[in-house]
Amino acid sequence: MTAIQARAPALSDLYRPIAAALESSDRIFREELASDQPFLRDLCDHVARFHGKRLRPALLLLVADACGGLRSEHEVLAAVVEMVHIATLVHDDVLDEADVRRKAPTVNRLCGNEQAVLVGDYLISHSFHLCASLQSQSASRIIAATSNTVCEGEMMQVANRDNLDLTERQYYDIIGRKTASLTAACCLLGAEFAVRDEALVERMREFGWSLGIAFQITDDLLDITGDEDEAGKSLGRDVHKGKLTLPLMHFLQTAPREQRSAAIELLRGDRADRHLRIAAMLSESASIDYAREAAESNIRRAVEILQALPASASRESLTTMAEFVLARRQ
Amino acid sequence: MTAIQARAPALSDLYRPIAAALESSDRIFREELASDQPFLRDLCDHVARFHGKRLRPALLLLVADACGGLRSEHEVLAAVVEMVHIATLVHDDVLDEADVRRKAPTVNRLCGNEQAVLVGDYLISHSFHLCASLQSQSASRIIAATSNTVCEGEMMQVANRDNLDLTERQYYDIIGRKTASLTAACCLLGAEFAVRDEALVERMREFGWSLGIAFQITDDLLDITGDEDEAGKSLGRDVHKGKLTLPLMHFLQTAPREQRSAAIELLRGDRADRHLRIAAMLSESASIDYAREAAESNIRRAVEILQALPASASRESLTTMAEFVLARRQ
Repeated sequence: MTAIQARAPALSDLYRPIAAALESSDRIFREELASDQPFLRDLCDHVARFHGKRLRPALLLLVADACGGLRSEHEVLAAVVEMVHIATLVHDDVLDEADVRRKAPTVNRLCGNEQAVLVGDYLISHSFHLCASLQSQSASRIIAATSNTVCEGEMMQVANRDNLDLTERQYYDIIGRKTASLTAACCLLGAEFAVRDEALVERMREFGWSLGIAFQITDDLLDITGDEDEAGKSLGRDVHKGKLTLPLMHFLQTAPREQRSAAIELLRGDRADRHLRIAAMLSESASIDYAREAAESNIRRAVEILQALPASASRESLTTMAEFVLARRQ
Repeated sequence: MTAIQARAPALSDLYRPIAAALESSDRIFREELASDQPFLRDLCDHVARFHGKRLRPALLLLVADACGGLRSEHEVLAAVVEMVHIATLVHDDVLDEADVRRKAPTVNRLCGNEQAVLVGDYLISHSFHLCASLQSQSASRIIAATSNTVCEGEMMQVANRDNLDLTERQYYDIIGRKTASLTAACCLLGAEFAVRDEALVERMREFGWSLGIAFQITDDLLDITGDEDEAGKSLGRDVHKGKLTLPLMHFLQTAPREQRSAAIELLRGDRADRHLRIAAMLSESASIDYAREAAESNIRRAVEILQALPASASRESLTTMAEFVLARRQ
């Protein structure tokens, strides 16, 4: 694997091969949400701030380009996957009551919980509307199936709050459904609308899946070990929500009895600083490294899959993005 | 117009022409929601209790049959529209915090607000997935556009809470989007997948629209004048939520100054019994009749449109259903 860059790559550099398509996709996104109702326009302008890195549309477009067939449908699909993603973020906030996301007040805190539920509904509905504007039903089927799966993952996660006996298999099932299914769909759609090569399409789906798994493991790690200012969102939320993630699960399974009991007592208690104490315990254990290695092995697989593609600027961007998943601080 | 039946018609009689198709549609509904996750199965079993009268699937199937072309696609579409409808009910509950609906505890009170948001998401996602299983994109476009419109209506309604200056135009815009758009879509889809007659398809859409408007006006009337046991849900909610509806709007526009001030004082206050006092004021005014006449004129239009169809058992059922919108107590 090539050396991980110590500094974050400039997204504009990584996205250069697909810059025009990404811009079209942004325009399609905005136009789809255009409304005759002023307050809806305001809300949707605000939602646009959730865009962040546009990871999912970029993935889709880069894969399409790397497979040799970037087409206008991809621009629509890129807008669709971003809309699906932001809808889940908006509903996540309703569920999380997080205070900060992307350094912008969440939709919730602007208007009250109800509008957040409805804005999320509005976004998901518009994503399907966009999908339905394409000729083939194939994308609609994939997007709808993915959306089903993401819902399931979220519901399983909520149902397993405070479940300290969560197994690794359950954890991977949850993150697979709620995160990896969408990144996998991005890459699947990028490839499927580019080439008639089922084997390649399937490999790109696997690439997206491995990327998504690594992304979520790293996200979960950052929640424990990260820095709030760098991350742009409040941390330690998982512990407070009773949500067990990989490093903590590993710790509970492998730590000496005394430490395990101490951790469980913290988790079952309600100290305001418990996430910091948990983080301290974990950093002195092998569990952080265990989770990091799990993320790394997924990225190794992802990068290896990319070698099946011909060399191109887009393939290089995808490789760098995959490696950056591990190096990121937000 | 034929005499309104004093007793509720038996739905099984009204639905007889399309009974087999409705049963298939129910099966498709259940199968679409089948999940490998036990708790999801439980939640969805519970959601099935929200089915109620299956008004929307029945409308779709009856229109299809009355147009002379009931097909297998209609069974899928009937399941789709019911799923969309129930998704909105589930999210309405999150917004309403209503205690009772259909004499069954709401999803909310079973599991907490979060699961209700996610169950609604799950349903809407599955409705699109079902739609995407059809050959043509046409139904997906119609369903997605309708879902967009329903969202807008709900958002406009929330945004106009406590707006005592709500105009009739705004009211009709809101109920048009949140209610009539879906009943219109049911009839549009029933006709469109049955016959190649654009004019007839458009007339059926108008039928569904008028029906939906009348349905909502009557629903709003029942909230003020109805009986809680008969209705199977808590009443007076609109007043408590600051939601102005037709009779109350008319009253504020036409009542003598003293009564108007008294009403506004009640609306702006927080007496637990204010909906009863408002109801008493309204029943002594011309406003209840005004709203009833608005509903009746929509039903007259709806029934008139039906005459464009050849005589059939399904057309008779549609006529009776339209008339019953006015006579119902729940």
